[in-house]
Amino acid sequence: MTTANTGAASNNSPSPIEDVVLALERLRARCPLTHCMTNEVVKDITANVLLAVGASPAMVEHAEEAQEFATMADALLVNLGTLDDVQMEAMRRAIPAYQRAGKPWVLDPVAVGALGVRTRFAREIIAHRPALIRGNASEIIGLCGRASRGRGADSGDSAEEALDAAGELTARTGAVVLVTGAVDYATDGARVRSCANGHALMTRVTGVGCAQGALAAAFAAVCEDRLEAALATAAVMAVAGEIAAARAAHPGSFRVALLDELSRIDGEILRQRARIA
Amino acid sequence: MTTANTGAASNNSPSPIEDVVLALERLRARCPLTHCMTNEVVKDITANVLLAVGASPAMVEHAEEAQEFATMADALLVNLGTLDDVQMEAMRRAIPAYQRAGKPWVLDPVAVGALGVRTRFAREIIAHRPALIRGNASEIIGLCGRASRGRGADSGDSAEEALDAAGELTARTGAVVLVTGAVDYATDGARVRSCANGHALMTRVTGVGCAQGALAAAFAAVCEDRLEAALATAAVMAVAGEIAAARAAHPGSFRVALLDELSRIDGEILRQRARIA
Amino acid sequence: MTTANTGAASNNSPSPIEDVVLALERLRARCPLTHCMTNEVVKDITANVLLAVGASPAMVEHAEEAQEFATMADALLVNLGTLDDVQMEAMRRAIPAYQRAGKPWVLDPVAVGALGVRTRFAREIIAHRPALIRGNASEIIGLCGRASRGRGADSGDSAEEALDAAGELTARTGAVVLVTGAVDYATDGARVRSCANGHALMTRVTGVGCAQGALAAAFAAVCEDRLEAALATAAVMAVAGEIAAARAAHPGSFRVALLDELSRIDGEILRQRARIA
Repeated sequence: MTTANTGAASNNSPSPIEDVVLALERLRARCPLTHCMTNEVVKDITANVLLAVGASPAMVEHAEEAQEFATMADALLVNLGTLDDVQMEAMRRAIPAYQRAGKPWVLDPVAVGALGVRTRFAREIIAHRPALIRGNASEIIGLCGRASRGRGADSGDSAEEALDAAGELTARTGAVVLVTGAVDYATDGARVRSCANGHALMTRVTGVGCAQGALAAAFAAVCEDRLEAALATAAVMAVAGEIAAARAAHPGSFRVALLDELSRIDGEILRQRARIA
Repeated sequence: MTTANTGAASNNSPSPIEDVVLALERLRARCPLTHCMTNEVVKDITANVLLAVGASPAMVEHAEEAQEFATMADALLVNLGTLDDVQMEAMRRAIPAYQRAGKPWVLDPVAVGALGVRTRFAREIIAHRPALIRGNASEIIGLCGRASRGRGADSGDSAEEALDAAGELTARTGAVVLVTGAVDYATDGARVRSCANGHALMTRVTGVGCAQGALAAAFAAVCEDRLEAALATAAVMAVAGEIAAARAAHPGSFRVALLDELSRIDGEILRQRARIA
Repeated sequence: MTTANTGAASNNSPSPIEDVVLALERLRARCPLTHCMTNEVVKDITANVLLAVGASPAMVEHAEEAQEFATMADALLVNLGTLDDVQMEAMRRAIPAYQRAGKPWVLDPVAVGALGVRTRFAREIIAHRPALIRGNASEIIGLCGRASRGRGADSGDSAEEALDAAGELTARTGAVVLVTGAVDYATDGARVRSCANGHALMTRVTGVGCAQGALAAAFAAVCEDRLEAALATAAVMAVAGEIAAARAAHPGSFRVALLDELSRIDGEILRQRARIA
């Protein structure tokens, strides 16, 4: 799982960790305006994660404005967590507008595979070539059309099991796929990267995974190589989470510490802590 | 108010505190998937309270998916705080689906009695036999059809005054009623339990009461005896709140401490602190 | 910018800081029920800011109930951050109801000038004579109909540059205008007040500005003189933010400290710290 294909892919950097460090520096220099069409539970933590890391969040929901905003924002996140008909319509207008503008959009297929409306919708919109797809193992397997064991937003499958489905998705959509779990895996089909940081407390705070989808959109706005964007997303969140968990043993204070660490994290911390392969 | 009717009811445990301890252990063992159709202000804290205690939250809003989700989730919360036409329609489809599936649903009648649309809607849906109703005194009085003094989400009536209305509601709906306030009261019509823990800071953080409604749904999923579920809901939140208030004197840090204490609370703490009668 | 016109205006207090102190005391004594029709990202922090300071938040969204609530609540906030068609319709019913009831409403024109639907809507509703308008420089310039440099919710213009537009808005609408930024400015056309407190961390937490709009509504409910309400809004938030930033250097813990300080702030702290001119 940790072999990096050094063949056809554009990025053959011998040091993926330095790619992550550079991606973070670029994000902070450019402060990408990140349009989040996301679920109603996680809007607060999503905006706060982006602000803490150094991006600029914007939530625009009206269909007409969501389309118009593609001319201003740098990237779009589409998270299906609390999809309704009005939001679907707005997403249907926003996504092609980003595609036309040549700006990346990221899909977070929350609970896809488990629930019908969003599963059909996700399969419809991936035709618009997302730059990146972020999900847990069950969601990636479900999006691919295979039987998954997801239960709400929880994954019943391991990230490793999802890698095969992820490979198929990259081929079908052109997207890089980030499968998050105890170990995170990113693949563009040719290459696989992994990040083995993180902490179980990250699953005891709502929206950490969804906020990671927004972070992926922000990184996609500043990284030509989407695999680098995916790996940076994984590493920044997981390393910050690991450090936060060392300071805060319970979920209320862990959430606070996570946001603090996301603002503190830098190249030195990443080089010291990130377990990337 | 503290006499426990030991007659016809199924649970005649001489030790309600041990029932609460067992309920909490069952909740943590089973991690009930708790479907929250709740208001837009409190989704974050509701999900975080469930995660902290040890349940699994899921917010599904689309009418079709909300109905479908009744086959997967373990219980449903219906909170009327920011009701709109779309959410009402989704609730109208979800509630009977849970009823058919034999799974409990909990009603939190926020500001019922004070505002027209939700008052009519609440009276419509209680025909579907909620397992549990949680509200402050004014909401319980208002739901019952009597004149209340509620003002927004604040109660202008005392929990004690609401007990009579609660008794009438149990007879009409079959639900156990939990009236929260400085002292919380739970009744199934035959029996009354009270919990005298808690702290005024709990009313200075938005969503603590609403999150308690979600917790009631999680406990209803693991407690055959709904009075036990209601008492566990009251005791776990109030004891955690009391301990948190001893650590944090202001609302920002109190909210953090409350979530921490909800993850720490256990049988030993409950036995030591809970003032149940 | 700091000259106070002592001519025709009703409030010629030689001590604006004492006006702020009195406004805060009145707010805590009356606990105004503050109806917030606001965006989906900031409902949690908005409610928590109001509770921390000592007001009572209520989020009512259904068009019929939003209108009905004008007979109960003390003031209305209209924040355009995540406007959609349903919310616009509800605002169209609520605003005139508050106007008829002689109760103040506050406009927070988030991203007006940058996005089309909300810009047209904002220009429509200001005909209903808001008591107060709160925005960053770009939003005030955009609302006025001039070219602004806003980018999402970020301002590309300085508060000072916006004062001219603010003056024009006061003349057109009768509202007091509060332009927030590194220095906050409030004007009723005749007088200008400024508050030079605050800290950059306030822009690294989502919703601080939006919550300030809600605070403005709460102060408008208890201050006959709207310029006093605007100045109290600016000073209370900025002084609390400044103290919080001295305790917490990162955005997660800063958010917690800000809520704590909003509950602690009082006349003594304001007299010691507020840099009002």
